[in-house]
Amino acid sequence: MIAKTPPMGWNSWDCYGAAVTEEIVRRNAEYMAANLKQYGYEYIVVDIQWYEPASISHAYNAFAELVMDEYGRLLPAENKFPSAKTAKVGGGCETGHMTGCNPVGCNSVGFKPLSDYIHSLGLKFGLHMMRGIPRQAVHANTAVKNTNATAKQIAQYNSVCAWNSDMYGVNAEAEGAAAYYDSVFEQFSEWGVDFVKVDDIAREFHVGELNLVRAALNKCGREMVLSVSPGPAPLREAEYFKANTNMWRITDDFWDKWALLYEMFERAEQWARHAGAGHWPDADMLPVGAINQVYGDDERTKFTADEQITMLTLWCFMRSPLMIGGELTKTDDFTFKLLTNINLLEMLSNSWCAKQIYRRRFKVEQPLGFGGLQNAQNVDNPQGEEIIWFAPRKSGGYYIAVFNTGEETRAITAELSSCELRGEYEAFDLWNKTRFVINDSLTANVNAHGAAAFLLTAR
Amino acid sequence: MIAKTPPMGWNSWDCYGAAVTEEIVRRNAEYMAANLKQYGYEYIVVDIQWYEPASISHAYNAFAELVMDEYGRLLPAENKFPSAKTAKVGGGCETGHMTGCNPVGCNSVGFKPLSDYIHSLGLKFGLHMMRGIPRQAVHANTAVKNTNATAKQIAQYNSVCAWNSDMYGVNAEAEGAAAYYDSVFEQFSEWGVDFVKVDDIAREFHVGELNLVRAALNKCGREMVLSVSPGPAPLREAEYFKANTNMWRITDDFWDKWALLYEMFERAEQWARHAGAGHWPDADMLPVGAINQVYGDDERTKFTADEQITMLTLWCFMRSPLMIGGELTKTDDFTFKLLTNINLLEMLSNSWCAKQIYRRRFKVEQPLGFGGLQNAQNVDNPQGEEIIWFAPRKSGGYYIAVFNTGEETRAITAELSSCELRGEYEAFDLWNKTRFVINDSLTANVNAHGAAAFLLTAR
Amino acid sequence: MIAKTPPMGWNSWDCYGAAVTEEIVRRNAEYMAANLKQYGYEYIVVDIQWYEPASISHAYNAFAELVMDEYGRLLPAENKFPSAKTAKVGGGCETGHMTGCNPVGCNSVGFKPLSDYIHSLGLKFGLHMMRGIPRQAVHANTAVKNTNATAKQIAQYNSVCAWNSDMYGVNAEAEGAAAYYDSVFEQFSEWGVDFVKVDDIAREFHVGELNLVRAALNKCGREMVLSVSPGPAPLREAEYFKANTNMWRITDDFWDKWALLYEMFERAEQWARHAGAGHWPDADMLPVGAINQVYGDDERTKFTADEQITMLTLWCFMRSPLMIGGELTKTDDFTFKLLTNINLLEMLSNSWCAKQIYRRRFKVEQPLGFGGLQNAQNVDNPQGEEIIWFAPRKSGGYYIAVFNTGEETRAITAELSSCELRGEYEAFDLWNKTRFVINDSLTANVNAHGAAAFLLTAR
Amino acid sequence: MIAKTPPMGWNSWDCYGAAVTEEIVRRNAEYMAANLKQYGYEYIVVDIQWYEPASISHAYNAFAELVMDEYGRLLPAENKFPSAKTAKVGGGCETGHMTGCNPVGCNSVGFKPLSDYIHSLGLKFGLHMMRGIPRQAVHANTAVKNTNATAKQIAQYNSVCAWNSDMYGVNAEAEGAAAYYDSVFEQFSEWGVDFVKVDDIAREFHVGELNLVRAALNKCGREMVLSVSPGPAPLREAEYFKANTNMWRITDDFWDKWALLYEMFERAEQWARHAGAGHWPDADMLPVGAINQVYGDDERTKFTADEQITMLTLWCFMRSPLMIGGELTKTDDFTFKLLTNINLLEMLSNSWCAKQIYRRRFKVEQPLGFGGLQNAQNVDNPQGEEIIWFAPRKSGGYYIAVFNTGEETRAITAELSSCELRGEYEAFDLWNKTRFVINDSLTANVNAHGAAAFLLTAR
Repeated sequence: MIAKTPPMGWNSWDCYGAAVTEEIVRRNAEYMAANLKQYGYEYIVVDIQWYEPASISHAYNAFAELVMDEYGRLLPAENKFPSAKTAKVGGGCETGHMTGCNPVGCNSVGFKPLSDYIHSLGLKFGLHMMRGIPRQAVHANTAVKNTNATAKQIAQYNSVCAWNSDMYGVNAEAEGAAAYYDSVFEQFSEWGVDFVKVDDIAREFHVGELNLVRAALNKCGREMVLSVSPGPAPLREAEYFKANTNMWRITDDFWDKWALLYEMFERAEQWARHAGAGHWPDADMLPVGAINQVYGDDERTKFTADEQITMLTLWCFMRSPLMIGGELTKTDDFTFKLLTNINLLEMLSNSWCAKQIYRRRFKVEQPLGFGGLQNAQNVDNPQGEEIIWFAPRKSGGYYIAVFNTGEETRAITAELSSCELRGEYEAFDLWNKTRFVINDSLTANVNAHGAAAFLLTAR
Repeated sequence: MIAKTPPMGWNSWDCYGAAVTEEIVRRNAEYMAANLKQYGYEYIVVDIQWYEPASISHAYNAFAELVMDEYGRLLPAENKFPSAKTAKVGGGCETGHMTGCNPVGCNSVGFKPLSDYIHSLGLKFGLHMMRGIPRQAVHANTAVKNTNATAKQIAQYNSVCAWNSDMYGVNAEAEGAAAYYDSVFEQFSEWGVDFVKVDDIAREFHVGELNLVRAALNKCGREMVLSVSPGPAPLREAEYFKANTNMWRITDDFWDKWALLYEMFERAEQWARHAGAGHWPDADMLPVGAINQVYGDDERTKFTADEQITMLTLWCFMRSPLMIGGELTKTDDFTFKLLTNINLLEMLSNSWCAKQIYRRRFKVEQPLGFGGLQNAQNVDNPQGEEIIWFAPRKSGGYYIAVFNTGEETRAITAELSSCELRGEYEAFDLWNKTRFVINDSLTANVNAHGAAAFLLTAR
Repeated sequence: MIAKTPPMGWNSWDCYGAAVTEEIVRRNAEYMAANLKQYGYEYIVVDIQWYEPASISHAYNAFAELVMDEYGRLLPAENKFPSAKTAKVGGGCETGHMTGCNPVGCNSVGFKPLSDYIHSLGLKFGLHMMRGIPRQAVHANTAVKNTNATAKQIAQYNSVCAWNSDMYGVNAEAEGAAAYYDSVFEQFSEWGVDFVKVDDIAREFHVGELNLVRAALNKCGREMVLSVSPGPAPLREAEYFKANTNMWRITDDFWDKWALLYEMFERAEQWARHAGAGHWPDADMLPVGAINQVYGDDERTKFTADEQITMLTLWCFMRSPLMIGGELTKTDDFTFKLLTNINLLEMLSNSWCAKQIYRRRFKVEQPLGFGGLQNAQNVDNPQGEEIIWFAPRKSGGYYIAVFNTGEETRAITAELSSCELRGEYEAFDLWNKTRFVINDSLTANVNAHGAAAFLLTAR
Repeated sequence: MIAKTPPMGWNSWDCYGAAVTEEIVRRNAEYMAANLKQYGYEYIVVDIQWYEPASISHAYNAFAELVMDEYGRLLPAENKFPSAKTAKVGGGCETGHMTGCNPVGCNSVGFKPLSDYIHSLGLKFGLHMMRGIPRQAVHANTAVKNTNATAKQIAQYNSVCAWNSDMYGVNAEAEGAAAYYDSVFEQFSEWGVDFVKVDDIAREFHVGELNLVRAALNKCGREMVLSVSPGPAPLREAEYFKANTNMWRITDDFWDKWALLYEMFERAEQWARHAGAGHWPDADMLPVGAINQVYGDDERTKFTADEQITMLTLWCFMRSPLMIGGELTKTDDFTFKLLTNINLLEMLSNSWCAKQIYRRRFKVEQPLGFGGLQNAQNVDNPQGEEIIWFAPRKSGGYYIAVFNTGEETRAITAELSSCELRGEYEAFDLWNKTRFVINDSLTANVNAHGAAAFLLTAR
């Protein structure tokens, strides 16, 4: 089984958008091998537009000319990924790579050299792809490999991505549609891909094409983590995603804004029960450290330290994949410690059944209910909530986290009875690394937008 | 804390509808004390229409004349609950407490004698109430106890129950509204009520009145389990129900039909994570044994034995309250064993974090996904699903259940990896009481509409 | 055929709300007979709460005690309508017809004396009724006249008006339901009612009860205009209203606010085509002159003179009934002229097929279209529109109106071609009583919120 | 003003779909000039795909190669429209017409020769166009005439027609977008186009592009009828369509099926009031005579004679444009008489204010209402309706039509009072050409799905 625990790694999007290059990928891989691999990080994922020579930011060029082969399969743009270009074999373009490739001596080896290098570092190679077939393949009416079908016959002209003009959707019922996806995964397999992020397929849920993707992956002869985007994936399709993918985005693109982090509590609460070996709800990349490098070398995450602690805590409790968004070679000390908290990271493999115990507004004027608390919903003027998460630890003990969504530091008490525990425990503070004894309840001072997390062991 | 584990008991509705009498209640209490108390059953709940002299089935009489006191509070109909009637103290009021009764000489003792008797058996007494104030109290404009307000001032004329004409809703903002609910709970407290089922308040979510109910209960000086009906309660209000009630209905009235049981899988999947000490999602009474007695002495549940096993298994995994619906004195051997499976009942206190692991259609023609399985949703022609539930056992080991919603017996295999387990375990079959050893997977033959449940312990 | 042209008259609601009395009715009738009858006004309509002794404003008393007879039929409150009270015939019942009154000696003559008086003035008598049966009739379980049924058997306990607590809806399928409505119309017939305004039946469209009302009216032996309220009646039911009623409200209560008048343009445009002999879309009473008298003798309409001219013009073009809302005896000169513009009023009988020709925003920056105009819809920042209405005059000539919804006086030109006319016409200004010649187009200076209307005759 | 009365003509779609050729157009024009012009028919409209060499039926070829010029403007496919091809001027493609044109000597004169011919017959020339810019222009990134912009800059990649792959929508805000539409209309103007049918713009209401179309037409120096498709156009945009277009489709494609004709009654009732000089609700082509010729020479309409009479009657009462759908040279006698009923056709210019008087189900068991009729809406089991339309005749007299939507011949009586008429009239039967005298009511025997129409003149 692949992805037995939530995948960990790095993704190029948050720091380089549509402008990622081979040099960037190599140096981030080298940093990971040297510094992060020991903590479990292993995937190096090249995100969107690796086949587009001209993109230079997070923006897309409409109707951009893409590099592709004679079967309408995309190839690395060689100005961005030079190792894809091989020496001229003879005269002329022998393998027929079309638009954008230098016709003389065209003989792309694709991502094989880069993938080999990443593997040589003991890491794994991930690659992004869009649902569908390139528009330019359709307009050039390229052949579908191993078939008599052509691009025009399998393209669905009115199934187009809302935010990127590169592709047409494929009519999953058309003859040749399955063969096309097979040919893409055949190539990915040859290139040594270990992780594929399929985009424009999960929020607008294109089940026909996703079935073809799954089948092609199964046939291609190589195991790859199947990650689907963008989010939010529809909750009603949870069983499909669990059975057919390894991770699926539960949110739209996540960035370094409190409002987005705040919203994640609700999504995490709804999706956590669907986390399990081989299938993980994905809260998106961690926008930490040196993100947005494409806009300036000095760009850094706008999250406060407390917000980052909240983020890592929540991601680990819900067991989301952890994909780092920042340029790794610029990792500062705080960020490094944030990402390598081994006691917290242990949750990815050694907890289960995590759930939100409760979520309650504070500053209630008229305490209600047996616990003196009240409705967190239908709140016109929320003053902040305290949120408790809990998870048994497989090898013994319990994890508990306390979040404060309010704007001021606050002493928050969690009655252990709400977790169905009672009596004395040793509490180990996972962020402050302190230990203390509690009895029937646990109180923590939690900063605004912050979190505290503990491992409880019976005494 | 009250309701630390899911409440267990008996409720009069499934067998006697709106026609329950004191004699019925007493004999069921006696049976419970003698036969079921040792298994954890303790609540004897008198359901709707105890104040209506004329109701004789599950039907309601529109605009029925109800028995009430001078403050618009309902009293037991003495033809149904004779112990409520006391000796005449002075002159007048010989016919009991009818509309607008003269307070001089009016001296019902209400449910105090019956409650005392139930307590003498070591059991607890539960009572049903409708949201609101009796229509006839409003039309008689009775006083609200301890206030200058009257019934007309607190009644909301256009807030009426859709299925019963007894009450007007109360305008929670009106002066006297809180005092009215206080007066009702004062009386319930005097009567020795231990469990109150508040109806017409959870599906149409009347939060204003429910806040008043909660506050009145808090003030009344007696602990009572607060159960709210009917269902389905809105999932988005989960945190409110957890904070303010002890159990809330997650379904409309549940009866002995497979379609209703089948639907419960989805509700259980959504609500299970909200079960916890003090607050339990309520899948409604168990329509087992001698239900529907009001239509004939020989009436019995129409559920098959396998369906009943499925029901008990699902209720215990999700930790629903267990309220028996049948006439207890007619309990047959099968039903008795069903209700007293101590290994299964142990789940109510000794499991946590139960969740559905997956739900998958079988008979797939074109296997898809890494597990050869596919989408359970959007299915026009389902041929049955296999459903796996899992829960760690607090004191060690794991519970696993396998359900078959199809129409034929089926060998179902659960890979332990789907539960994040591996290796050798002893499996104890909770229904067949057999033991065997498994390694990495568990296979069970499960009848149509049936279930198998196991306790796994590491070897 | 009744209501061959749109009914004209006076209604008590705008000036006296739920506090109308016989004295008020008589003096308004007298004024009408002396001053307005010659212009076509003839209906004197007593609106809601004539059976409620205690109402004193536009507000309703919840659960008010109503005056009714032994069959649950409402009777005039004698403190408000003293002529309804007759000499005591025998023993008992001195206080008039209250709940559960003893039929012996009970002998209200209802509205007969008042109706006779109104008829003696050459006018017609209108009366309001609510859908349903009085709550107190239900709680007293009165008999339904000429049947064995009782009020409880025909009342629908959960069909209640959203804004008034007097009645329960009637279950149209119940035995006795038709007989109940028959008995009400029998009484209305005896009282000499000529116009009945049935309330709580048109917006929430209670077709079952409205069918019973229609049938009862057909059987009762007296012609009455059937007017249904409140609005907005659903447009999709236009054919029903045309076939079964004489007028139906197309709007919620209309008051002296520009926003409400502005909205009426859209409703008028949609409904005008459904106006025809016997069936008229009703834009509600005209809140002119001395309205709101219940709040002070000096209260007057807040509409400007221009807005009132707009209102009368629009009502007459669409051929709405004209029911005056103000206390007639306080009619000032402007209001009198407004209401008695015979050239405009002629439209009620001598125009047909009126329609809005167009409605266009002005102050367009980028003129579009063959007429240099553009979309009136989807406008975030409307700066006013010019609106043209047109109607052929049956006996020759054409009516044309020009409205200015903007905030400044504006010269508005209507090309006659937009009305499919061309050439020379004499234009008679219906409000200013001037005459001039036009050729192919007509230009008028129209005040803010104002209107101009013309009769065109070919030269 | 253009289109002062509803346009009349012929359109190629119903008979030839996407396969229309010059030869077809010429012979239909010749027939019209000889036989129909005297009745008012004058537009010869070439519908979709005249630029697509390969289409041969009503179907579209996905990603078809279109003929276009160097500015991305479509040109007639010369295999279909040979007159568009001129003699070779010199060597090479001097004017740069691109894809699909013969590069040697390419110098298309477009539709000028065909248009000239049509004009020479005394007729007018109409042409279809799709919203947007050809996909292949975008992928070739052609220049936008008279600008520095290119196709890629103005195309909106995710605004694509749902049913045809030829075009991308244009981003109306983009620089160059207006110039592009200007260039298209410049060409249409040069070609002598008199009528343009813009498709993919009215149902999905693309107001930005439609504004550009309107502005381009205004600027181009030639008057053209602006017709927009497909329908149903949104009713809420009526004022926009009236101000900016000459005709707009009120229905999806209309074909020879009773269900579609039946639905048109409702649309006609809603839209008729928006008909007026210069702006006409368009009920689509008349599928009469030899339609569907692309599937066989012997194909004929499946409408019965009565249904065709109903259709023409309804179209003329609502004053829809009349565009003939059949191959004209195969017009049979019935069809010819149907299309040339001068007394009916007179309605297009000499009636106004037509409206549906009522629509009533017949076979009512329990007659209701003052007319003994009842609700036409909310009918589970309709047994047919009688529908009355009425319109004053400008030059005197009245038109009245009686429709029978039931399945049996039926004598239908229309009371003249429902049209606000009374007394004696001479009735001239517009279809049977008979005359008779009526008094206060008119009775006609109307066949199933049929209609009768009359001109009434006072005696």
